[in-house]
Amino acid sequence: MPGATFPDEALSDDKFLCGKLRLLQPVKGYRAATDAVLLAAACPAVPGQTVLDLGCGAGAASFCLASRVPGLIQSGLELQPEYADLARRNAARNGIAFEVAEGDLTRMPPSLRRDFDHVIANPPWYPPGGTASPVRQRATAMQVRLPVGEWVAAGARRLAPGGWLTVIAGADSVPELLAALSPKLGSATILPLAAREGREALRVILRARKGGRAAFRLLPPLVIHAGEAHTGDREHYSPLAREILREGAALPAAFS
Amino acid sequence: MPGATFPDEALSDDKFLCGKLRLLQPVKGYRAATDAVLLAAACPAVPGQTVLDLGCGAGAASFCLASRVPGLIQSGLELQPEYADLARRNAARNGIAFEVAEGDLTRMPPSLRRDFDHVIANPPWYPPGGTASPVRQRATAMQVRLPVGEWVAAGARRLAPGGWLTVIAGADSVPELLAALSPKLGSATILPLAAREGREALRVILRARKGGRAAFRLLPPLVIHAGEAHTGDREHYSPLAREILREGAALPAAFS
Repeated sequence: MPGATFPDEALSDDKFLCGKLRLLQPVKGYRAATDAVLLAAACPAVPGQTVLDLGCGAGAASFCLASRVPGLIQSGLELQPEYADLARRNAARNGIAFEVAEGDLTRMPPSLRRDFDHVIANPPWYPPGGTASPVRQRATAMQVRLPVGEWVAAGARRLAPGGWLTVIAGADSVPELLAALSPKLGSATILPLAAREGREALRVILRARKGGRAAFRLLPPLVIHAGEAHTGDREHYSPLAREILREGAALPAAFS
Repeated sequence: MPGATFPDEALSDDKFLCGKLRLLQPVKGYRAATDAVLLAAACPAVPGQTVLDLGCGAGAASFCLASRVPGLIQSGLELQPEYADLARRNAARNGIAFEVAEGDLTRMPPSLRRDFDHVIANPPWYPPGGTASPVRQRATAMQVRLPVGEWVAAGARRLAPGGWLTVIAGADSVPELLAALSPKLGSATILPLAAREGREALRVILRARKGGRAAFRLLPPLVIHAGEAHTGDREHYSPLAREILREGAALPAAFS
């Protein structure tokens, strides 16, 4: 691996949240998409709290959260040095304070061994039937290197009592996500993310609270697209998905 | 407990599936409702297969299944002798062959210690916020005597390789249901049951296969009632719920 930075010609400069954010991303590597925005929308952080982004990549989820909630104290952990470098550059370009540590979540860097009010994570995920990318970084980010249960457990270790874990993951990993809650996390909810009304959810958002004792809840699906099928290249988000994905809104109360 | 039969004056004679079935049920005891019909609709049995109904009560779920699928060989296990007696009387009245054993699912009676193609179960469940009934049988049937995980484990033990477990349970018990799958059951799906469109599911149907290896799937919710709220005493089922609850239809392919 020659150097720990992406060459400029390998990067695109993308708008997020209607241009409120600009994100440098590798053209061919792992690229943040709606998952990062949905993850930020689901994190119940309030001003002044601390947030750790496990596997922050180029920083999309953390920056979406910063754009909605002012005054957060935000940190990220990233395994790949090129992405950690990109997250720092993106933070500076968007005027967001974001401490990025390089490392592996199973061996948390000492600088992050403290308690956080929130932990967010978008673990690598293969869509069912997908294949490995020929691009090394994308393959690293997309391949399931660690079981998602390890991400949940690492998040639980870093949370303050009463702190919230928010994770976006494949619906196929729900059993593993829930099995990893015990003994530290409770008050869990699963929010299914359905591409269209009546479709099976392929992705879910798990939220759980450290020391929480409330019963598990299965929330109604958040439907991303309006209508029965794509009717061309135009984006047809559902009204709620549009507020979240275009305006950076939080999930409404019905989904919390 | 004086005798193991309900006195006739304590029973009502209720129509199920538009009168296709008639069920004697205690007026004040546990009474089968939509849950039993939905459970039967979700069981993928085909003619000639064997089915065990754990905690069969007065037999509603098994008889709904018999009315949809001819030629099944059906058995039930029931803890309370009065309900076991009622299940036998109801089977005879409806002309359905149904072997009922009295006993506890953690100490399976010898007559049921064989392999079945299907196990169905509607374990006792308190709606969140509910209170115990003053009527003894109802209290026994409704109180959570055994964790639902024990029902799943007992079902797994009774299934033939490749056989299916179908359980209806509270959505709050999803983590426990899924934790109980391993190591015998896989290919699990959770079907959320939502009272109305966009509402949180309070009940779910779990299906899992003995020795199954397919990924877990979270299905789209089955919506029971049409419209935003009750508009009077008339029943306003969704079209799909009406087919299932009034006509005894199976769940369509989109939910399997």
